[in-house]
Amino acid sequence: MADNTILITGISGFVGGYYSSFLNHTKKDWTIHGISRSKPSWDFLPDTDTILDSVQFHQCDLLDEQATEQLIKEIKPRYILHLAAFSSVAESWLQPRLAFQNNTNAFLNVAESVRLHNRECRILSVGSSEEYGIVSPHDLPLKEEFLNKPANPYAIARVSQESLATIYTRGYDLDICCTRSFNHIGPGQHQKFVVSSIAKQFASIVTNGTAPAIVIGNGEIVRDFIDIDDVIRAYDAIFEHGRTGETYNVCSGSGHTIAQIVSIYAEMLDLPVHLEQQNNLVRPIDNPVLFGSYEKLMNQTGWKPRVSLETSLSKIYEYWCNRLRDHAA
Amino acid sequence: MADNTILITGISGFVGGYYSSFLNHTKKDWTIHGISRSKPSWDFLPDTDTILDSVQFHQCDLLDEQATEQLIKEIKPRYILHLAAFSSVAESWLQPRLAFQNNTNAFLNVAESVRLHNRECRILSVGSSEEYGIVSPHDLPLKEEFLNKPANPYAIARVSQESLATIYTRGYDLDICCTRSFNHIGPGQHQKFVVSSIAKQFASIVTNGTAPAIVIGNGEIVRDFIDIDDVIRAYDAIFEHGRTGETYNVCSGSGHTIAQIVSIYAEMLDLPVHLEQQNNLVRPIDNPVLFGSYEKLMNQTGWKPRVSLETSLSKIYEYWCNRLRDHAA
Repeated sequence: MADNTILITGISGFVGGYYSSFLNHTKKDWTIHGISRSKPSWDFLPDTDTILDSVQFHQCDLLDEQATEQLIKEIKPRYILHLAAFSSVAESWLQPRLAFQNNTNAFLNVAESVRLHNRECRILSVGSSEEYGIVSPHDLPLKEEFLNKPANPYAIARVSQESLATIYTRGYDLDICCTRSFNHIGPGQHQKFVVSSIAKQFASIVTNGTAPAIVIGNGEIVRDFIDIDDVIRAYDAIFEHGRTGETYNVCSGSGHTIAQIVSIYAEMLDLPVHLEQQNNLVRPIDNPVLFGSYEKLMNQTGWKPRVSLETSLSKIYEYWCNRLRDHAA
Repeated sequence: MADNTILITGISGFVGGYYSSFLNHTKKDWTIHGISRSKPSWDFLPDTDTILDSVQFHQCDLLDEQATEQLIKEIKPRYILHLAAFSSVAESWLQPRLAFQNNTNAFLNVAESVRLHNRECRILSVGSSEEYGIVSPHDLPLKEEFLNKPANPYAIARVSQESLATIYTRGYDLDICCTRSFNHIGPGQHQKFVVSSIAKQFASIVTNGTAPAIVIGNGEIVRDFIDIDDVIRAYDAIFEHGRTGETYNVCSGSGHTIAQIVSIYAEMLDLPVHLEQQNNLVRPIDNPVLFGSYEKLMNQTGWKPRVSLETSLSKIYEYWCNRLRDHAA
């Protein structure tokens, strides 16, 4: 426990790759353990092989109580970055039970394992802006103390996770910080996420000469998009300076509609496009507007977002252009 | 589905026994199914054998997804009274994971089974006053719209259960009503509950001549005690007249300290006692004061509590006197 050992759950994903890369470059003496079903590809990292070599991978089903306890007992990490999640709102309507178990119960198993076997560990429990639910315009930008009215199964699961974190902190004296992370964007994010999908479609128009049409879901919803590099620095800032038991918005502080994202690309690339809205996603209730305030995180840790939306969108577009060219080659 | 079939989960307990008896006396054409590990004893009912004969018992682990789905698919109940729970605050501190699973996940399996196989069913999801958590004096009496700050693992589990009920109602159009039930009391309740414990000690002093001392935990906490007969009528009123998606306090509307309960008995029996406070229960955080308003339930269903605290305490005392005499005989 004297050393800087970190365990990253759900390491194989988008955030896990970037966080591993960040640790590899800035904290060379850290030991990185990661839980993943299979070795990730992380094709978005410039030095994937080096990063992969720096991580000790473990297979562990976080719904398996004994396996989770055993792993945490063995590794005894100083830090746990809990990224593992069922993170799709749309899919949570189709699989509410899986969404709940893979967010709430998985976190509960991690927290309980730490309570029983590794109490000196700091856990960063990643949550979601979806926890705010349906909000009224005068609540914007959203602050952490606002009442939660979660509006989908994913959001319910995340609020339950955060409530459990609170009780493990206050009742059992564990060291847990929580986030409500807003919409991450960045090169390498799966195209099921809206900005990645839009960027790929633009890249395809330019690279493959497909028809100048962009298909999106509801173009009017407003979200707070934050670059992955800013997210990574935020999580690091919370590990270093966050206060036990506190929840922090991780956000850019401003909101954009999905249609605006398309417009920014169209202007950036000087490429007029036709916008096609499809309503094939199952979302009985949707949050029209979500954007946050990062004042608390800034005041308590010194963190501020650095990457502009335009820079971030540009990076994502370049990623897809490279991917499509590689694929064609 | 045309008939009045009800499924009662956790039927073998205190509330399940009284509810079965109520149905047997007032709704003779109903078919009653109950989930229970074993056949209950219900020694507190005057006509236990008749009631037991009126119920079709099933063994079903509500954490077993397939078994729960299968049973609900087979029975296709018009109503589900979901009583099954892990209902001890003190034990939830010792077994937070079990408390969570046996409240939240068990309910989720019931709701999901209804969503998939039996959508026309009305579910009554029983919750707890503990959901209110630590409240300030000017929030009293507690109303349903107040912000929840649950303060123990049991309460977190109950809030998560209620949140899931809300999303199943609003997102999937199921017919679910919720309660926040305050402290039930009545003959036959397990002596691990405070009023039952106090009544048994008084009965023992009178019947067995034990020393005139009453052992309690924290005597200063205030709770809202409601007689089991009033609870049963409240649940019936919600099934009949409750509004889909609503949560109702089930309470007496007034609060008493534990020490006051002892005083009422001492006066009623003209038996001065010595009060011994023990702090052997593991409760890192406790709610000092909880009592509710039943205005919403009254306005929407016409229900009102009928049994005075003194009458209720008297019945419980008589129950224990009979039990102790039977045991001695």
